[in-house]
Amino acid sequence: MDGTKRSIAEAPIHPGLGTHLIIDLSNGQRLDDETRVEQALRDAVAASGATLLDIHLHRFAPQGVTGVAMLAESHITVHTWPELGFAAFDAFMCGAANPWAVVDVLADAFETKDVNVRELSRGNRV
Amino acid sequence: MDGTKRSIAEAPIHPGLGTHLIIDLSNGQRLDDETRVEQALRDAVAASGATLLDIHLHRFAPQGVTGVAMLAESHITVHTWPELGFAAFDAFMCGAANPWAVVDVLADAFETKDVNVRELSRGNRV
Repeated sequence: MDGTKRSIAEAPIHPGLGTHLIIDLSNGQRLDDETRVEQALRDAVAASGATLLDIHLHRFAPQGVTGVAMLAESHITVHTWPELGFAAFDAFMCGAANPWAVVDVLADAFETKDVNVRELSRGNRV
Repeated sequence: MDGTKRSIAEAPIHPGLGTHLIIDLSNGQRLDDETRVEQALRDAVAASGATLLDIHLHRFAPQGVTGVAMLAESHITVHTWPELGFAAFDAFMCGAANPWAVVDVLADAFETKDVNVRELSRGNRV
């Protein structure tokens, strides 16, 4: 990191570039069900109004699913810990897509109301 | 969102689940070079000590590259705006991998020192 600047400044240098939601879901069900995870991603993309490019999923042994929906507007990712009832998502979208629409879809898909969401702007200055 | 809880609590309910870096890179070069982007992702994964599952990239017309490195430890994503000299990365890693090692690799690959990094814990309570 010699000479590389770091900061935690929140003021965007390119305001409106996009919104990034960090979504931690607890007490979830069916987090080891790859079909459910894929459908949840597809439903989340549709609800947000984003354009899907591709979905890629991996299932781990003995458990856990990781995946990404690549979007024209950026991405949604998922990583599940079925043994903890926990899943980590993020939804980053630029343009007119609405990443907040993702949250309800995921809560419904995994049968929980326990969702922690942190919203970040992107395009930040150094 | 009827009934779905939201909060900005930072205390993790599953401490140590993973570290998520939100990396905004400014004044970057070669952000429209898909080969450079792919190599930067591969080098970043290697530097962090993570295990690569797959890399997927898309190039947009007239410009811009979006991509993901799917990891056994979670992911690195990239979205570039060559016309702005800007790129949005995130690096989420659990286990022993070190996402901070990604930052230097990206700064070098895109020939800038202007990198804004926000560090988030994952596994947060509602």
